[in-house]
Amino acid sequence: MTTAPVDVDTARSDYAALVGRGLKLDLTRGKPSPRQLDLSAGLLKLPGEQFKAEDGTDVRNYGGLKGLAELRRIFARALQVPVEQLLAQGNSSLELMHDAVVQAMLSKLPGAERRWADEPRVAFLCPVPGYDRHFALTERFGIEMIQVPMNDDGPDMDLVERLVAEDAGIKGIWCVPKYSNPSGVSFGDETVRRLATMTTAAPDFRIFWDNAYAVHHLTETETEIADLLGLATEVGNADRVFVFGSTSKITYAGAGVGFFGASEANLAWWTGLIAKRTIGPDKVNQLRHALFLRDEDGLRVHMRAHAELIAPKFAAVDRILTEELGDQASWTKPAGGYFISLTVREGTAKEVVRLAKEAGIALTPAGATHPHGDDPADATIRIAPTFPDLSEVEEAIRGMAVCVRLAAAQKG
Amino acid sequence: MTTAPVDVDTARSDYAALVGRGLKLDLTRGKPSPRQLDLSAGLLKLPGEQFKAEDGTDVRNYGGLKGLAELRRIFARALQVPVEQLLAQGNSSLELMHDAVVQAMLSKLPGAERRWADEPRVAFLCPVPGYDRHFALTERFGIEMIQVPMNDDGPDMDLVERLVAEDAGIKGIWCVPKYSNPSGVSFGDETVRRLATMTTAAPDFRIFWDNAYAVHHLTETETEIADLLGLATEVGNADRVFVFGSTSKITYAGAGVGFFGASEANLAWWTGLIAKRTIGPDKVNQLRHALFLRDEDGLRVHMRAHAELIAPKFAAVDRILTEELGDQASWTKPAGGYFISLTVREGTAKEVVRLAKEAGIALTPAGATHPHGDDPADATIRIAPTFPDLSEVEEAIRGMAVCVRLAAAQKG
Repeated sequence: MTTAPVDVDTARSDYAALVGRGLKLDLTRGKPSPRQLDLSAGLLKLPGEQFKAEDGTDVRNYGGLKGLAELRRIFARALQVPVEQLLAQGNSSLELMHDAVVQAMLSKLPGAERRWADEPRVAFLCPVPGYDRHFALTERFGIEMIQVPMNDDGPDMDLVERLVAEDAGIKGIWCVPKYSNPSGVSFGDETVRRLATMTTAAPDFRIFWDNAYAVHHLTETETEIADLLGLATEVGNADRVFVFGSTSKITYAGAGVGFFGASEANLAWWTGLIAKRTIGPDKVNQLRHALFLRDEDGLRVHMRAHAELIAPKFAAVDRILTEELGDQASWTKPAGGYFISLTVREGTAKEVVRLAKEAGIALTPAGATHPHGDDPADATIRIAPTFPDLSEVEEAIRGMAVCVRLAAAQKG
Repeated sequence: MTTAPVDVDTARSDYAALVGRGLKLDLTRGKPSPRQLDLSAGLLKLPGEQFKAEDGTDVRNYGGLKGLAELRRIFARALQVPVEQLLAQGNSSLELMHDAVVQAMLSKLPGAERRWADEPRVAFLCPVPGYDRHFALTERFGIEMIQVPMNDDGPDMDLVERLVAEDAGIKGIWCVPKYSNPSGVSFGDETVRRLATMTTAAPDFRIFWDNAYAVHHLTETETEIADLLGLATEVGNADRVFVFGSTSKITYAGAGVGFFGASEANLAWWTGLIAKRTIGPDKVNQLRHALFLRDEDGLRVHMRAHAELIAPKFAAVDRILTEELGDQASWTKPAGGYFISLTVREGTAKEVVRLAKEAGIALTPAGATHPHGDDPADATIRIAPTFPDLSEVEEAIRGMAVCVRLAAAQKG
């Protein structure tokens, strides 16, 4: 155990020993582990004999743009969207966010003066650290990304309010409101209230509310966040909210179901446009999920089983970082979600990732938590501990700590 | 049986009797019948215990943008795309066509001078009669639709060649090359060769080759069409071909798998862009399909079972139209696919559909076979006989014939 800074020679010799071990470990992505996936083994034989939805619909045939009501009902409360305003769609929420941007580019949103493609400038607020796939999506469409710091209760709302009030080019904000990727932060009630009620210069401003970890608790305490869509609706701002969610980290990653929730005006806009794209989502998979999860209680029991598998991995990361780095770095202690955000000495995150890679430990690229992959402080590293076995997580974190110490010692 | 034209009074009295029967029949959409869907009952319990693809991939987790090789292999020959150039994607081919247009609008295609969104004008050639969902999609993006007549061996190629050679605004053509929707026409070898080799003014011209009925034979004779992608590749035009297909009318409509085939340059363009949208398709459903269909022979046996169920319906339509209308109308006798195209007296198709609706027989809106729903001759009606029971098909067609006779008699 080495919690005091070490000299370069010691750090180098520790690192040489690490490289000599020839590890091959991967902490890059927030993937469920095979044991987590085993929890949903029942899905592989479902729906079995059954092919009728509760309303009599033959799920094997065309139709049903909104998705099955019995599945939407299971997720309505968790996603804080009235069931009649919640759609069950395809196999991911990322594609729904992508398509929401695409449709807004090519067709006027409710309240918009023009299509985003015809705007002189489209910008999104990007709370940082944040989710690299959000940023990649905005970047792909040439959308300007304006960074906003994340505080302990969500984005810096003073700054957010000021920016959206004065700049009509700001059309959206990325939010992961619960157990945020990567910091684990959950938005405070006041943050949510301010997002719902703030004045925006753009009439077609949208909050992309990616509630990816709505039920992904790591402890007995189930964090609740305020109801953004409800609050926004109360004050006449219902149209500013796009809610996204999925079962990717509940059942299967890629073979799950994505959800989209919004106001009636937004849903009319959305369904009118996607009706040109699809005759309906995979209702067999939706029925499969409804039969497997059964109801809200079934969902809760299922998520507790996930927590039992992954909470020890999060605890191990915290324990080993404490042992190995002490106050040489800081890191988050999330109560849910899939990530730990590690803050190392400024100017060393890239070097840590490079050193780790050479020692056979794959980490998410430093900077991935920031737009364009550029973390100005070069200090943030996202740790994704869910996929490897517990012993691998321990080994990888201990090895990473060696890299953190060497990078700091080299910096002098 | 009434094959000679009838006077208005007889026609009116026949129609009054029809209305009096209070039918409720639907020939609108090309949907598989429940008995056809029963053929794939095995899918409902698959993949069972298995969750590894042949290459060891855990299909329950993220990844695999191209889709499973074992499924692509089953469809490569039928879709005439080398397996390494064929992607297995989401639950429909319509969404792949939609997204191909979207991506071309927002990102420069290989060979393009600019994005389609930045073109002064984008036009598609639309062989008519054609598929209404193709036209709705092009219309939604403001793409101009230029009609081209369908002949017995495909689109009028003299006209197609002339138009694409002189007009750089023409960026695409919709084709359903085998058992076309709605005429049942299969493209002749010479048509395919000319499409592959013709000179186009647009450097980014694309043939949207919707091979929706590649294996959907109604008879023992399996129509083969020439290999567009192969021919185009031979003459250096590989990039002009986008091949689409799906299992929507093989297994389940909505819970099947869509395919996209193209040149390497097009695939690099496509996968680079969809990687911002998705982490991968539903590989569990792809494994399910691969296990169920097994191989090309399994697919052939499965499609013969479909033909046994639907060929009698097509035969009944032909028999009843012959009995009831004789030479008062003409109609196609397709060797595959899902539709019969009925040509009634000019200026009466809309009236036939209206009369049928009032008598409880739902037909696809007249004009749906043409861009903007406008058939200038008002003469084409698409008949979709697969979904209803045989006795219902017979009843509906006999009732529709009453409407055809009345509309003609009213016209005088």
